[in-house]
Amino acid sequence: MIAEILSIGDELLIGQTINTNASWIGQEMSKMGARVIRVSTISDDKNEIIHSLQNLNQETNCLIITGGLGPTKDDITKHTLCDFFKTELEIHEPTLKKIQAFFAARNRPMLESNNQQAALPKDCTILNNNYGTASGMWFEKNNVIIISLPGVPYEMKGIMTEEVFPRLKSKFNLKSIYHKTALTQGIGESFLAEKIKDWENNVREEGFGLAYLPSPGMVKLRITSYNGQVDETKINGYFQELKNIIPEALWGFEQETLPEVIGKLLTKKCMTLGTVESCTGGLLANTIVSNSGASHYFTGGLVTYSNDQKHQLANVSVDSILNHGAVSEEVAIEMANGAKERLGVDLCIATTGIAGPNGGSEDKPVGLVWIAIAFKDKRIGRKFQFGDNRERNMQMTVLSALNWLRFELENL
Amino acid sequence: MIAEILSIGDELLIGQTINTNASWIGQEMSKMGARVIRVSTISDDKNEIIHSLQNLNQETNCLIITGGLGPTKDDITKHTLCDFFKTELEIHEPTLKKIQAFFAARNRPMLESNNQQAALPKDCTILNNNYGTASGMWFEKNNVIIISLPGVPYEMKGIMTEEVFPRLKSKFNLKSIYHKTALTQGIGESFLAEKIKDWENNVREEGFGLAYLPSPGMVKLRITSYNGQVDETKINGYFQELKNIIPEALWGFEQETLPEVIGKLLTKKCMTLGTVESCTGGLLANTIVSNSGASHYFTGGLVTYSNDQKHQLANVSVDSILNHGAVSEEVAIEMANGAKERLGVDLCIATTGIAGPNGGSEDKPVGLVWIAIAFKDKRIGRKFQFGDNRERNMQMTVLSALNWLRFELENL
Repeated sequence: MIAEILSIGDELLIGQTINTNASWIGQEMSKMGARVIRVSTISDDKNEIIHSLQNLNQETNCLIITGGLGPTKDDITKHTLCDFFKTELEIHEPTLKKIQAFFAARNRPMLESNNQQAALPKDCTILNNNYGTASGMWFEKNNVIIISLPGVPYEMKGIMTEEVFPRLKSKFNLKSIYHKTALTQGIGESFLAEKIKDWENNVREEGFGLAYLPSPGMVKLRITSYNGQVDETKINGYFQELKNIIPEALWGFEQETLPEVIGKLLTKKCMTLGTVESCTGGLLANTIVSNSGASHYFTGGLVTYSNDQKHQLANVSVDSILNHGAVSEEVAIEMANGAKERLGVDLCIATTGIAGPNGGSEDKPVGLVWIAIAFKDKRIGRKFQFGDNRERNMQMTVLSALNWLRFELENL
Repeated sequence: MIAEILSIGDELLIGQTINTNASWIGQEMSKMGARVIRVSTISDDKNEIIHSLQNLNQETNCLIITGGLGPTKDDITKHTLCDFFKTELEIHEPTLKKIQAFFAARNRPMLESNNQQAALPKDCTILNNNYGTASGMWFEKNNVIIISLPGVPYEMKGIMTEEVFPRLKSKFNLKSIYHKTALTQGIGESFLAEKIKDWENNVREEGFGLAYLPSPGMVKLRITSYNGQVDETKINGYFQELKNIIPEALWGFEQETLPEVIGKLLTKKCMTLGTVESCTGGLLANTIVSNSGASHYFTGGLVTYSNDQKHQLANVSVDSILNHGAVSEEVAIEMANGAKERLGVDLCIATTGIAGPNGGSEDKPVGLVWIAIAFKDKRIGRKFQFGDNRERNMQMTVLSALNWLRFELENL
C-alpha cells in the first residue's frame, strides 16, 4: 500500500495551524506497514484540489484528504469531489438523523448549514463520524482509494481508527509488521542508548528492529518484528530483561499512561492519593484525574501557589519558608506531610520549583524543582534540574513525580 | 509572488518529526505578501524530488525546498538538483573555508563528508549559512526561482532571514497583505456565522477577506486586507463593531491567551483569584498559572474531587450534596463561596460536572457541568452541556469558566 496525504486549509499554508494531522496519519500508516510517499497541503480552492487529485504519484493507491468539510461557506471539498467523481450530493438519512441527535443532545438549534452537512455524494461509502457532524467519504476510482475526512483532529482520528484502518487492512493484504513499545522516563536518549548498548546489540543481532522515539521527558523504545505477532513472546522476554536493567525508568508499555499505571497500583494496594502543588499549579492533580477511574483513589489536592497558602492550607512553617526558601527540600517535605494530614490520604506528593521564565537566581536557577513524597512514616525529597521553558518544566515535573511514585509503589 | 514549499525527509512522512519548518515559512511568506499555494513533503528519493520539480503549479514562481542537505549519505537533494538543472558540482572555495573554520572553532576533526558539503552546483547563487555547514542554493529557470535550504530549523530560518527574504522582496515587487485575528469562545462556528452574517457581508463587500478558524472550544475570525497595514484602522473598526455584537464571546486578538487577558484585568482591578475544582481536577488552576505573572493575583486553589473533600475543604453542606447531588447549581455555588472564604481571595470560580466517560444518568448526562463564580456579594451559577470526551469536557469547562470570568471582569 502506497499512500499520499492531502491536507486542505489556508490556516495550514499560512502557518497559523501546524499540520499535526499529517504526522499522526503518517505515524499510524507506517505502523500498519503502509508507505506514505507524499504529504501535500493546499488551499480551500477548487482548482488546487482538482490539480492534486489529477497529479497523484503513479504508484499511489490510497489518498487520505483531511480538512475542508465544516459547515461554513468556505468549505468546498465536498462539491469538488462530486465534480471529480461525476456524482452529485443527496441527503444521507442516517447522517441527517445523527446530526439532529447531536444538536438535540446539546440542546442547541440546528441551522440550514448543519442540514447541508448531511448532503453527501451519492457514489461513495459514507464513513461514520462519532465525534462531530461532518461524515467521512470513501471513493474508489481506477484502483485508487480516495478518503475525505474532516480536519478537526479528534474527529479525524476517530474516523480513521474506527472506519478507515480496518477497511484498509482488509482491502490491502498488508504485510504483517508487529511492534511493541516500552515506555521510559527520566533518562535522556543518548545516555539511555549507552546504558542499554549490550541489550540493544543483542536485539538487533537476532533480526529485530529497534527505534528510539523521543518526546519531551520520555523515550519510547519500539521493537519491530518482520514476522508478525508470532514473535510476541520473544519480544516480551527482551522487555523483561530491559526492565531489570532500567527499573527506575521503564514504567509501561504500548498505549499505557503513567496515570493509568499509578491508578492500577494504588487500587491494588487500596491506598488513597493526594497532591499539593506550587510550581505545577494543578497540573499534577489534573494529570492524575485524566485517568477516568481516579475517583477510586484520588480524593483531592491543594494548589498552594503563594507562600501564605503553603502555610495556611498545608501547614508549612513560616520558619522553613524564611530559612530555606519556598523552593527547598524542607518546604517540599513539609508540604507533602501537611497536605497528607489535611487531605486525610495515605500518600501525598508535593511539588515546588521555579518554573520560569523569571524568578531564578544563581543559587536557585529557573528549572530547579523539589518533589517530595509522604507515605506511612516515610518523608523523602528529590531535587531535579530542568530547563528554561515554563510549560515544559511543569510537564517534566509532573512526569518525574508520577514516575517516581510508580517506582515507589512497585517496591512497596 | 506565488510560492510552493517542498519539505524533504522520511522523518516527516512517518510522523516522527512535525513539519514546523513549513509553518514558519508559510507564516513569514504570507506576512511578506506572498501567497503559498502548496506545501509538499516527500521522501529523500531522487524520483520523488524530480517529480515534484516537474509538477509545480503553473502559477508558481518560487519554490522553497528544505531538507536533504546534511553530511550523511542519504542526502541526495544536491545531486538531484544538478541533474535537473544540467550542471555539476564544484568545490565552492568560500564555503570550504567557512566549513574548515567552523570545525576549527569547535576543535572537532573534519571528515570527508564535511569536505563534500563545499561541493556545490556551478550554475547557482550560493546562499551563505552562518549557523552550520550546509550552504543554501538559489536557482532560476524559466522565470521560476528554486531555493534549496538545509532542514535544521535554526539554520533554515537564519538563511531565509538573511539571504532569501531580502532577495525575494526586491525581485518581486511585493504587494503587502495584512491580517488581524479576533478570538472568540462559546459560540459554535455555524451559529456564530449566522449571528454575524450582516457584519460579515459588510466586511466582504468592502473587499476584505474573512476566514473562520475553528479549534476546540474556540473560533478565530481573521480579516485579511490586500492593501497592507494601511487598512489597520478600518479593520480595528470592524472588530469594534463585532465586539458590540458578541461581547460575551469576543475575548481577545492575535496571539493573546485567555489567562493573559484575565491576568491583565485582575491586575488592573487589584483583585485576587482562587479556584475550586471537581470535574476539571486542577486544569483550571494550571491554565491560570500558565501565564507567568499569575503569582500577582492567583494565590491558590482547591481540588475537591471527592464529596468528602468538597465538605472538608470548601465547606459545602452535606445536605446540599445529598439533596441536589455533587453536580448541581447549589453545590457549585457553595463550593465557590466556601473556597473564597478558605483561600481568602476576592473572587473564586468553581467547577463541578460529569467529565465522563462514565458517571452519567438520564437527568445528569455525561458532559453536564455547573460553573459558579463568587465575588463581592454576587454568587452566580451557570449550566453547560458539553460532549462525551473526558479530556475535551475538561478543556471546554476551563475555557468557558475563564471566558465567563473575563466577561464579568470587563463589566465590573
